[in-house]
Amino acid sequence: MPSPTTSVRAHLRLRADAPAAASALVALADRHGVELLSETLTVTGPDGPVEVRELRSGDGTRLHEFTVPAGASTLEYEAQVRTSTGPDATLGARERWEFTRPSRYCPSDRLITFAAAEFGRLDAGPRRELLPDLVARWVFDHLAYVSGSSLPTDGALETLLARQGVCRDFTHLVVAVLRALDVPARLCSVYAPGLSPMDFHAVVEAAPDGRWQVVDATRLAPRESLLRIASGRDAADTAFLTTAGQVDLQELSVVAVVEGDLPLDDHAHPVVLR
Amino acid sequence: MPSPTTSVRAHLRLRADAPAAASALVALADRHGVELLSETLTVTGPDGPVEVRELRSGDGTRLHEFTVPAGASTLEYEAQVRTSTGPDATLGARERWEFTRPSRYCPSDRLITFAAAEFGRLDAGPRRELLPDLVARWVFDHLAYVSGSSLPTDGALETLLARQGVCRDFTHLVVAVLRALDVPARLCSVYAPGLSPMDFHAVVEAAPDGRWQVVDATRLAPRESLLRIASGRDAADTAFLTTAGQVDLQELSVVAVVEGDLPLDDHAHPVVLR
Amino acid sequence: MPSPTTSVRAHLRLRADAPAAASALVALADRHGVELLSETLTVTGPDGPVEVRELRSGDGTRLHEFTVPAGASTLEYEAQVRTSTGPDATLGARERWEFTRPSRYCPSDRLITFAAAEFGRLDAGPRRELLPDLVARWVFDHLAYVSGSSLPTDGALETLLARQGVCRDFTHLVVAVLRALDVPARLCSVYAPGLSPMDFHAVVEAAPDGRWQVVDATRLAPRESLLRIASGRDAADTAFLTTAGQVDLQELSVVAVVEGDLPLDDHAHPVVLR
Amino acid sequence: MPSPTTSVRAHLRLRADAPAAASALVALADRHGVELLSETLTVTGPDGPVEVRELRSGDGTRLHEFTVPAGASTLEYEAQVRTSTGPDATLGARERWEFTRPSRYCPSDRLITFAAAEFGRLDAGPRRELLPDLVARWVFDHLAYVSGSSLPTDGALETLLARQGVCRDFTHLVVAVLRALDVPARLCSVYAPGLSPMDFHAVVEAAPDGRWQVVDATRLAPRESLLRIASGRDAADTAFLTTAGQVDLQELSVVAVVEGDLPLDDHAHPVVLR
Repeated sequence: MPSPTTSVRAHLRLRADAPAAASALVALADRHGVELLSETLTVTGPDGPVEVRELRSGDGTRLHEFTVPAGASTLEYEAQVRTSTGPDATLGARERWEFTRPSRYCPSDRLITFAAAEFGRLDAGPRRELLPDLVARWVFDHLAYVSGSSLPTDGALETLLARQGVCRDFTHLVVAVLRALDVPARLCSVYAPGLSPMDFHAVVEAAPDGRWQVVDATRLAPRESLLRIASGRDAADTAFLTTAGQVDLQELSVVAVVEGDLPLDDHAHPVVLR
Repeated sequence: MPSPTTSVRAHLRLRADAPAAASALVALADRHGVELLSETLTVTGPDGPVEVRELRSGDGTRLHEFTVPAGASTLEYEAQVRTSTGPDATLGARERWEFTRPSRYCPSDRLITFAAAEFGRLDAGPRRELLPDLVARWVFDHLAYVSGSSLPTDGALETLLARQGVCRDFTHLVVAVLRALDVPARLCSVYAPGLSPMDFHAVVEAAPDGRWQVVDATRLAPRESLLRIASGRDAADTAFLTTAGQVDLQELSVVAVVEGDLPLDDHAHPVVLR
Repeated sequence: MPSPTTSVRAHLRLRADAPAAASALVALADRHGVELLSETLTVTGPDGPVEVRELRSGDGTRLHEFTVPAGASTLEYEAQVRTSTGPDATLGARERWEFTRPSRYCPSDRLITFAAAEFGRLDAGPRRELLPDLVARWVFDHLAYVSGSSLPTDGALETLLARQGVCRDFTHLVVAVLRALDVPARLCSVYAPGLSPMDFHAVVEAAPDGRWQVVDATRLAPRESLLRIASGRDAADTAFLTTAGQVDLQELSVVAVVEGDLPLDDHAHPVVLR
Repeated sequence: MPSPTTSVRAHLRLRADAPAAASALVALADRHGVELLSETLTVTGPDGPVEVRELRSGDGTRLHEFTVPAGASTLEYEAQVRTSTGPDATLGARERWEFTRPSRYCPSDRLITFAAAEFGRLDAGPRRELLPDLVARWVFDHLAYVSGSSLPTDGALETLLARQGVCRDFTHLVVAVLRALDVPARLCSVYAPGLSPMDFHAVVEAAPDGRWQVVDATRLAPRESLLRIASGRDAADTAFLTTAGQVDLQELSVVAVVEGDLPLDDHAHPVVLR
C-alpha cells in the first residue's frame, strides 16, 4: 500500500503596538515515520519578512522564535508529508519519571484518591495497559464537549467538576488521572485531519507498559491520521503561540487534509502517534 | 405504643490563657415532637460557675453564649427527652430561597453542570421528591468514610474531588448538589443514637416538595432516632463551639442513648427530622 | 435642616421560554430613618400584571416573589423617600456570631493568617473600631476597579489574588478580612446616588464595637446618601434577581437621585447606613 | 585563595511492604565549578546492596533509579567537593521559554495581575535585573517561615494567601511571581551549609538578563556555599525521593559542611549558583 500524503497549513494574523518576543509551536515535529516533502514557515511584518530561529528539543519538537513587529503581521506555515509506520515509541528512562509528575494543568497529586476510587486496582498486572483507553472512555462518557465553556487557567480539577470543556480540557483530565495511577502521560498538540471545525487539536500520549500510545477522549478525529507538533506536560508546553508582551491574535486558521479517505478509528485498539 | 425516651450528654473540657467569648451549639433545638423531661447546661471555670446566656432563633436553634475563663473549664450538657411524631415540617416561604443559595462549604453555584450531568433531568415532575435519596445514595456509593481525611476548610468541591471525608463532608456534598438542582437543602447537627464511635453527627435536611425530610449519606445511624441541635446553611452555622480568641478543646465526649432497641433504617423512605 | 428626598427606580426586562419562579431584592428595606413617600412595584407579562408576594425578614429586607411568565415581561420599581437621622444601629446578640462566620464569597476561615499578617495586632483595644476603615483603605489602595474583570463565582480569595474586581468583589474582600479579624461584617446592596455609571451598588456594613457602620472600599458614591435594599452574608443573599429556571435578563436600568447637592464623603469618619 | 572543600551527606531509612520503583535526587549536579573529590551512593536492603542506575539530564541533574526492596532499606550518599568560581551561567535559548511557563506549584498565569499591581512597571529596562531580589525581598518581608504550616499540594497561590510556609513555599511564590513578570525562573534543590535545622533546601534561580542568578527568600543560608542537586520547574521536578508504590520514609538526615568560616550574604548582590 502506498503511503498517504498529508497537507497541513496554519495561518496566524497578529497585531502588536510594540515589538514583542514570541515563540510558535506550529511546525510538525521531527519524528520517525514522518517524511517532509515540502515545508515553509514565514513571518511577515509591515516591513517585510521577519527573521525566525528554530529551537529543537530532544524529542523532535521544533519551537520557532521571532519578534512580532509593531503593526500587523502574519505567520504562515505549510507542509506536505508522507507518513509511514514507524517503530514503536519506547518510553525513555527519564520520561518514566518526568511524565508521572504533576504539572500546571494536570495536578495529578490532587486526583490520587479520585483515580483510585474510580479506576480501582487496575494499576498493576495485565489490565494496566488498558488504562489509557479506560480513562479516556470515562472522560468521553462523563464530559460534554462545549466550545467556550472553559478558561485558559482551568486545569483538570476544574474540568472534572464542570463535566465539560474542549479538547485541551478533556486531555488534561485524562493525563492527570493516568499520572495519578502512575502511568506516564503527556499532552501532544497535533494537526488532526477530519476535525470539525478544523483547529489545532490536543490528544493524550500515555505509556502504561513502556511504549507510548495515543488516546483521544474527544473522539473527534481518527488517531491514525494525527500529526504531532509538540509534546509536553500539558498545554503550558504546547501553546501554538506564546508572547512576551501584548500581541493580539486577530485570526487563526488551520488546515489538515489527508489524501484519500480518512481511516476509521475504533478507539479500542492502541495506536502509535507519529 | 409508648413514646421512647432519649438521653443525650455532651462534655467539653477547655483551656484558655485569657478570657475568650464563646458560643456553643450543643443544646437540643426547641421543636415539635421533642418534649424535654430534664435539661442542664453548665459551664464551670477555675472560680466556679460561668454565666451562660441563651440566644434562640426562629427555627428553634438555641445558641449558648458565655466567656471561657482563663485556665481550665468544662461545659456539661445533659438532657432527657420524650419524642413523638410531630406534624410534617413545612418549608417556609423565605426558606425556599435561603436554602437554595450557595454557602461557604456548599458552593452549589460551582456544581451546576456536575449536578445536571450526573442527575440529569430529575429536577421537575414526580421524581423530584426522590432527589434527596438519589443524591445521598450516589455520595454513599462513591465516597469513602475516612476519619481525619479532610480539613476544616474543605467544602463540597474538595470532597467531590477527594472522594472521601467524614459526616460533615458527606453532608456538604449532598447539600451542595441538591441546591445546584434547585432543591432547598441544609445541614443539621444532631445527636445520633447508634453512631459509632459516638460523636456529634451532621445530616442533610432537604425539601424537594415543600416538606423537609432528612437523609444521611453516611448511613451511620438510623434517622428515626436523630435529635436536632442546630440547622444552618452548612457547618459554619452549626459548629458545636466557636470562640473569639485562642481556646484549646482538650476533650470532647458525646453520649446519645435511646431507650429500647434502635429502629432500623431502610434509607429509601422519607423521614422527618424532629 | 429639612430632610432631603431621594428617588429610586429599577427597571428589569426579562424573557423566559417557560414560567419560572423568581425572587427580587430591589425594594428599599424597611428601616428607621427612611420614610416612604410613595412606592410601586409591578411585574407585567404578556397577559398583564403578575401577582407579587412580599416576604419580609426580621432585619427589614423585603424579598418579592413572583412567577416570571413565558415570553417578555418587565419589573418596575419606583420609590420616593424622605430620610432622617435614625438611631444608631446596634449589633444584635445573634448577629455577633452570625456575621463572623465564613460565607460563600467571604471565606474568612482561609484569610486568618493573611489578615493577621497584614493588619497585625489591631484586633483588640481602642484601635479595633478603626478596622473597617483600615481594611477598606487597604483594599481601595491595592485593588483596581475593572468592569468585567471577575466571574460570578469569584469570592474574596480570587479577588485578593487578582487585585481587581467590581464593587461586589471589593466588598467581599473587606467583609472576609474583617471576619477573619473577628469583626462582624456583612454585605448590603444599596441604591447609591452619585454612582457612575448608575447601577445597583454593594457596600460593607461592619460592627467592630457593637454598632453597625458602613464602609465602601470603592469610594464611588457618598455613604450618607446610600439607601439599603438587602443585608446578607454576601452577594448570595442580596442578588437583585434569582430565578429557578432559565430567565434572560435583557435589560437593567437603575436610577437613584437625591434632592439637592450630593454630600461629600471623607471616608474616614463612621457613617451609619440607613 | 585556595578553594574551600565542602562535605555533604544524606541518609534515608525506608520501609516497604512490597518492592517499589524509586528515583532519588540527592546527588550533586554535574556542574562547572564543582570538582568531585570523592562520592558514594549506596542503597542497601535486607539482602544486601541494591542496584542503582544513574540517569543524567542535559543540565547536569543526576537522578538515581532503583527498586526499594520489601523490608527495611537505606540510601546513603556522601560526597566531598572542591568549589571554584565557574563561568556565568547563561540562559539557554529554549530555557527562556521553558522557565516562563506556569507549572504545578508555580501557576504564574494566575498571578499576572497581582505581580503587575505589586511590582509595577519594572518588567523592562535597567531595573529588570533587580526583579529577583525585589520579589524575594517582598516574600521575605511578607511571609512567616513556619515549619509544618503547609501541605505538599500547596502551590504559590495558597502560600500567597496563607502568608506563611517553608523554603519550598517561599521559593514557589518567588518563582511564580517572576514568571508572571516574564522573568525565567526555576527551583533548585540544594545542600545548604549553615542551614539550621539542617535539611535539604530549595532556592530560586532566575535569569532576568540572560544569566542565571540565585536568590533565597528565606535568607536561611549563605548563597555562596549552596551546592546544586536538581533544577526544575518546581518541587515536582526536584523531590529528593519519588516512589511508585507505598514506601515509608522513616528517617532523613542531611549534612552539609563547608571547610572554614561560612561566607556572609548581603542578599542584595547577585550570586551565581554552582
